[in-house]
Amino acid sequence: MEAKFTKASTLKKLIEAVKELIDECNLECSSTGITMQAMDSSHISLVSFELLAEGFEEYQCNQNISIGINLGTLSKILKSASSDDSIRIFTDENIESITFEFINNEKSIKSTYEIKLIDITGDPVGIPETEYSVTVSMASTEFSKICKDLGVMGETVKVEQKDKKVIFSTSGELGTGSIEINEGENIDESTTTKIESNENIELSFALRYLTLFSKAAPLCENVTLSLELNVPLVVEFPIGEMGALGSIKYFLAPKMGDEDEEEDAEEEMEEWNN
Amino acid sequence: MEAKFTKASTLKKLIEAVKELIDECNLECSSTGITMQAMDSSHISLVSFELLAEGFEEYQCNQNISIGINLGTLSKILKSASSDDSIRIFTDENIESITFEFINNEKSIKSTYEIKLIDITGDPVGIPETEYSVTVSMASTEFSKICKDLGVMGETVKVEQKDKKVIFSTSGELGTGSIEINEGENIDESTTTKIESNENIELSFALRYLTLFSKAAPLCENVTLSLELNVPLVVEFPIGEMGALGSIKYFLAPKMGDEDEEEDAEEEMEEWNN
Amino acid sequence: MEAKFTKASTLKKLIEAVKELIDECNLECSSTGITMQAMDSSHISLVSFELLAEGFEEYQCNQNISIGINLGTLSKILKSASSDDSIRIFTDENIESITFEFINNEKSIKSTYEIKLIDITGDPVGIPETEYSVTVSMASTEFSKICKDLGVMGETVKVEQKDKKVIFSTSGELGTGSIEINEGENIDESTTTKIESNENIELSFALRYLTLFSKAAPLCENVTLSLELNVPLVVEFPIGEMGALGSIKYFLAPKMGDEDEEEDAEEEMEEWNN
Repeated sequence: MEAKFTKASTLKKLIEAVKELIDECNLECSSTGITMQAMDSSHISLVSFELLAEGFEEYQCNQNISIGINLGTLSKILKSASSDDSIRIFTDENIESITFEFINNEKSIKSTYEIKLIDITGDPVGIPETEYSVTVSMASTEFSKICKDLGVMGETVKVEQKDKKVIFSTSGELGTGSIEINEGENIDESTTTKIESNENIELSFALRYLTLFSKAAPLCENVTLSLELNVPLVVEFPIGEMGALGSIKYFLAPKMGDEDEEEDAEEEMEEWNN
Repeated sequence: MEAKFTKASTLKKLIEAVKELIDECNLECSSTGITMQAMDSSHISLVSFELLAEGFEEYQCNQNISIGINLGTLSKILKSASSDDSIRIFTDENIESITFEFINNEKSIKSTYEIKLIDITGDPVGIPETEYSVTVSMASTEFSKICKDLGVMGETVKVEQKDKKVIFSTSGELGTGSIEINEGENIDESTTTKIESNENIELSFALRYLTLFSKAAPLCENVTLSLELNVPLVVEFPIGEMGALGSIKYFLAPKMGDEDEEEDAEEEMEEWNN
Repeated sequence: MEAKFTKASTLKKLIEAVKELIDECNLECSSTGITMQAMDSSHISLVSFELLAEGFEEYQCNQNISIGINLGTLSKILKSASSDDSIRIFTDENIESITFEFINNEKSIKSTYEIKLIDITGDPVGIPETEYSVTVSMASTEFSKICKDLGVMGETVKVEQKDKKVIFSTSGELGTGSIEINEGENIDESTTTKIESNENIELSFALRYLTLFSKAAPLCENVTLSLELNVPLVVEFPIGEMGALGSIKYFLAPKMGDEDEEEDAEEEMEEWNN
């Protein structure tokens, strides 16, 4: 396997977007590109990404291989790369290690890091095809801000869609907080809020996970939330620097009641495993 | 009660200027505006502010009410406001809660936070009218820097005024430090140092408190120190963004001798209570 | 003794460059300038600097004197100086204290700090004259980056020079890292990498010390490494703001084998003491 990212920042942002949810993962490489899928360590949420071969500056892979890596190690190595460096990654012949080569065309410097692959067991989950009755597209910076701001007041966020507006709200010991976004009012056209909806909906989620998902905001100026009753929420960020020939998706089951919610959510996600 | 700040930054800076001195306070609202007065938790210094009705974008209050709030909670909520948001605040009918509404005209977002009021007992102190023999007006950034720089060397600052100059000095284990400011030399006219003086004066203060007072520097580019023998120092910042239709004042009793100074200062301030 | 730095930043950067290696030191002042030499507290490396009288805005010293100072204290005081302040330093008549005067011509402020001198024993080491078979001149920012980046992967750096290129490499639990710099390719002419070499060389050093040496990078845009078998490495930064009429040098013995290296290094440096 050999692949080249034009900008190191793409891979840096991608790893930052998953490393707080999962410690290690298998990159599944094939001739069509690289995919990854993993449940977070508490088995509440699922994250997956897909990088299509056409989205790389160069990409070549003649067999299906699994590249097991520790994301903490990878994140440390990537700190060495300037955002404008290009990155070439390749495996050795026996697929026992992976090498990261950072190339900075303006300087006389070339950095190379080689790390041993690790064995990670676990089959990918089958994600069922779902029709979502509500999809909301909004600026990813606004999504991040909503998660951060409401996180001050509570732990659970209620997402309510009606009449072309979406209300995120929470309550806690200090009081209540609520943030309303309306379709179409955003001044910057490329990130205007768009709401597609067949019916009104009201779902609750663990704010902590949405906040972790929002770490992907630097990957794209837009994010799409897909909502459906009794079905995990999908938070999707296209990868802007790959011309959207790649994307990252997070799945999180809604909270069912007032007690044992995390267990409910865990069961919901576990079902996909079976 | 209902009031509107054109810029969230005004309220943000005001709360930052008091929250390290006091944990909670009563906002006293009347038809003429909002006032607040509280001693710091160690009863050494006193802080008060006044926001005149005319200084708000909108203001309306038909009865005298006390709004008891925790400043830590308020500070957390205000973190959500962008500096350019406008803030509308209002109490509910039974005056049991206060709501903060942040409005950003450029975005399709509206945030609302509601917190329960708390009961705080304690009567306001009567501050005696005083003639000060020396007043010094200077750039608030310079005042902040003096507190921070001398804080490295000592715990007590001596303020000495003579011959149209003011000398702030301290000494400690490491050595001595002294900073001299002269009238009129500052290049930027609006913050030129001005010294009005009937006599020479020399007073000592706990540097820790002056440093806490200097947190108000972002509210105004100028600060005025009023000094008089055996009387608490007044450090006053007009609130620039309210067109000076508001101000915050800090009072701190001078140190009397080498021992038990904090007790002296505490007694001095306590007298006002009786 | 009396000396004046045109820019406070020169002295600030110089102190930052040594304060993590040594806690206190003697500034040796004579009519020709100021020198300093000290081993780090673990006796592994040696640091020295020289500031020629002509490099100061003003300099005057009629007798040879030792000024013993604590670098932590000095660093704290220098935090008060703006980079554009000029600094005048002078000793009192009995050479018991040193005074730092920060002058800001644009403001009406003058700050003065006086600290007591301390007694530090210890004779300066005689550094033997050495011919180095390899010298590498490179951008100091690149040197810093190499130390920081490789520090993620290992504790020892191997420096290898052959064929007009220099390879810095390390290995550790996570994997291996290597950074290659080539002569002449750097786009910015003033910091182009230059390699002078009589023979190929390969030496290993404790990365931790090189990283500490790289704190001097703000002093100059270039750094020179001088390498010779079985002889301490020299890392030299001219002091840019003194028109190179001053420089700081760090010495570090190479690692000899796989075990007891620090002891070897210590013995190597101790030899200079005898």
